[in-house]
Amino acid sequence: MGVLVAGGVSGGHINPAVTLTLALVGKFPFRKVAHYVVAQYLGAFLAAGATYVVYIDAINSYEAGSNRPIMGDGATAGIFATYPQTFLSEEVGFADQVFGTGILLAVVCALSDPKNRVPKSLVPLFVGLTVVAIGMSMGFNCGYPINPARDLAPRFFTAIAGWTWRVFTIRTWSYIPLVAPHVGGLLGALIYMFFIEAHSPHDDQLPVAADRDSKEMEIKQV
Amino acid sequence: MGVLVAGGVSGGHINPAVTLTLALVGKFPFRKVAHYVVAQYLGAFLAAGATYVVYIDAINSYEAGSNRPIMGDGATAGIFATYPQTFLSEEVGFADQVFGTGILLAVVCALSDPKNRVPKSLVPLFVGLTVVAIGMSMGFNCGYPINPARDLAPRFFTAIAGWTWRVFTIRTWSYIPLVAPHVGGLLGALIYMFFIEAHSPHDDQLPVAADRDSKEMEIKQV
Amino acid sequence: MGVLVAGGVSGGHINPAVTLTLALVGKFPFRKVAHYVVAQYLGAFLAAGATYVVYIDAINSYEAGSNRPIMGDGATAGIFATYPQTFLSEEVGFADQVFGTGILLAVVCALSDPKNRVPKSLVPLFVGLTVVAIGMSMGFNCGYPINPARDLAPRFFTAIAGWTWRVFTIRTWSYIPLVAPHVGGLLGALIYMFFIEAHSPHDDQLPVAADRDSKEMEIKQV
Amino acid sequence: MGVLVAGGVSGGHINPAVTLTLALVGKFPFRKVAHYVVAQYLGAFLAAGATYVVYIDAINSYEAGSNRPIMGDGATAGIFATYPQTFLSEEVGFADQVFGTGILLAVVCALSDPKNRVPKSLVPLFVGLTVVAIGMSMGFNCGYPINPARDLAPRFFTAIAGWTWRVFTIRTWSYIPLVAPHVGGLLGALIYMFFIEAHSPHDDQLPVAADRDSKEMEIKQV
Repeated sequence: MGVLVAGGVSGGHINPAVTLTLALVGKFPFRKVAHYVVAQYLGAFLAAGATYVVYIDAINSYEAGSNRPIMGDGATAGIFATYPQTFLSEEVGFADQVFGTGILLAVVCALSDPKNRVPKSLVPLFVGLTVVAIGMSMGFNCGYPINPARDLAPRFFTAIAGWTWRVFTIRTWSYIPLVAPHVGGLLGALIYMFFIEAHSPHDDQLPVAADRDSKEMEIKQV
Repeated sequence: MGVLVAGGVSGGHINPAVTLTLALVGKFPFRKVAHYVVAQYLGAFLAAGATYVVYIDAINSYEAGSNRPIMGDGATAGIFATYPQTFLSEEVGFADQVFGTGILLAVVCALSDPKNRVPKSLVPLFVGLTVVAIGMSMGFNCGYPINPARDLAPRFFTAIAGWTWRVFTIRTWSYIPLVAPHVGGLLGALIYMFFIEAHSPHDDQLPVAADRDSKEMEIKQV
Repeated sequence: MGVLVAGGVSGGHINPAVTLTLALVGKFPFRKVAHYVVAQYLGAFLAAGATYVVYIDAINSYEAGSNRPIMGDGATAGIFATYPQTFLSEEVGFADQVFGTGILLAVVCALSDPKNRVPKSLVPLFVGLTVVAIGMSMGFNCGYPINPARDLAPRFFTAIAGWTWRVFTIRTWSYIPLVAPHVGGLLGALIYMFFIEAHSPHDDQLPVAADRDSKEMEIKQV
Repeated sequence: MGVLVAGGVSGGHINPAVTLTLALVGKFPFRKVAHYVVAQYLGAFLAAGATYVVYIDAINSYEAGSNRPIMGDGATAGIFATYPQTFLSEEVGFADQVFGTGILLAVVCALSDPKNRVPKSLVPLFVGLTVVAIGMSMGFNCGYPINPARDLAPRFFTAIAGWTWRVFTIRTWSYIPLVAPHVGGLLGALIYMFFIEAHSPHDDQLPVAADRDSKEMEIKQV
């Protein structure tokens, strides 16, 4: 929904890993990166505040007197930022975020590849389905942040809203959603560009008029 | 499905908060608001009656002899109108409905923004997915009415169908789904108009012919 | 998937209530109804056979020695045909099927209404989502047959495949999925035609060229 | 997502049963089959490795000291390759895979049939929904491999990654996902071609200009 609402004016960037990656691979102007990323962190912070307002009664009721627990039974900090499973090591958590964001950026590159001719109005739907699919298949380890703003800004909000600064130190974790998505995003975009985009048929080899008329093109769709 | 079926003749308005908001921001003619809103409340009342007819055996079986309980274990009034969780305060419930309907109207404005070029036949799908998403993320507090007709008309039906007028008074709640969606809807539409629509590229700056041909436009889709 | 696969040659009719209703309201040629309906019952019978083949081991394992029970704990006849909840009366069950199939046909009429301009390739998706939505909201009473072929043919299959002819007589039910969908389908189609289609803007009042260019049309989409 | 990402350059083939079937029925050039199929098995092997890397901590935690169990409680080999339910016989398991892959190929043929005019950008969505639907309706027996590469390559990976070669011999099963999808895929494609495609209206009988203008065409969509 965020991509849909904001798509008309900004392209619907809501993930610093997407914005910075697209700039690094030449698909987005660098001069826009700074204020986009600032807005993404600010938006995620405000969204954390809105979630806090709407669920303050539910949080108080669920905690039943315990004071803003961060991890374990009855913990509520995980509503805002991500916390890994107890079994997850730093290395594997980092790899998890590299793979997850790599898949996201490969899909984003495919959706924005002019040769794939994805209608603009369907892009938010496909991005949403992709994030849901990543969440279902890769959310088990650490809740699939795959977006530095979506993790750091709410973590900062919880730090100042009563969960204390231990949200940053309770596990050696909080730097991973900040760093790994940028690594994975860049890898995913480069893999798409070198293995797919660079080998696409050239524009002048494509039938220009209509892509639904020749049998040859139909087979390529499967 | 309602938006799809009725879209051809009326535009598929089934929510007074949507209709009144669009009129207030100049996107829908005021002279049509009155009979649209009357039809919305009437339709929701008839739908409550149909639900009652189809589920009367199930309701009687589920209640197992208790006489139309409104809240608590075995309560059936919540099939028709919404009732908040016991922990929910009036203020937070009001905020919940303001946020929920605000998000809905921001999406509705984006879907109807000509610059986003959403095909007419996809609008019902996107509205449906948006309502499902709001329900999943914001239904916990009070069942996400976000539509005054969808709450008041079935509540009135239950009042006269055996649940007694206590459906209005058992909690200080029933005015909130009637008022807060109008407040939130207007806020959501204004936020979209001032932060997104007002900053969209002007029509005469857009490539006219085809929106799939230039790489520059593709990047904006991400 | 069935609508998608068969759509190219037959229009994807797989429900006698849809075929007969569309013929009765003048949207489908009567001379084709007989062999369409025969094919629908035959196809449902073969599908029941395929399900039996694929799940014969699972059915035998689940029954654990009891011999093809029809209703109650461990019953397997409900894999094929529908059986109502014990609390459901005949009258309410009939109404349930009238409402359910009425909604289906109203949506089918909307999808096939040229004024709604639903792309042919999206029709299977919307029909599928509609059937899923009817199943989720109306499946509780009796498993939402809403299709005479989908209920009668598998019931006949189970009768001759070991569940005995009691599948027809164990409850006063099996005539309802055969009759009520035709009643409800016709009502749903007539309601759509009289309340929506008859009041649509005339074709010559519609902007001919493109439906995405005028702001006036966009508002009607909401 | 795989079909979407790779669709631009290769057509998004990720299933040897799809590739070989389309070649056998003349919809894909035979000279491309060999390196496509090699890439599919290689890709599935690498994906199994990536899954192993991301979930190694979770697997070790879940196994709690038992050493790479293949079947039964706490087994983890099923994360990679498929293993049938204990009740499933070889014959029924083979039939399950024939039916499942047959349905998949019938849908793939329908999606790639030029007469159905499915937009290229929607094909990945429809393929994804079809696989989900097959998984929900046919996953109970043996986890719906319906793709030789998706089963054999991860099984080989587990054999060398600690689960031992017993992954191939613990049940008389592992040849079925390798053979039955090719049988079923060919049957599904032939059924589509003989029963649907061969009876489609000829191209020269179709209204050429626009498929949304005549009422006659609309009815065929239902």
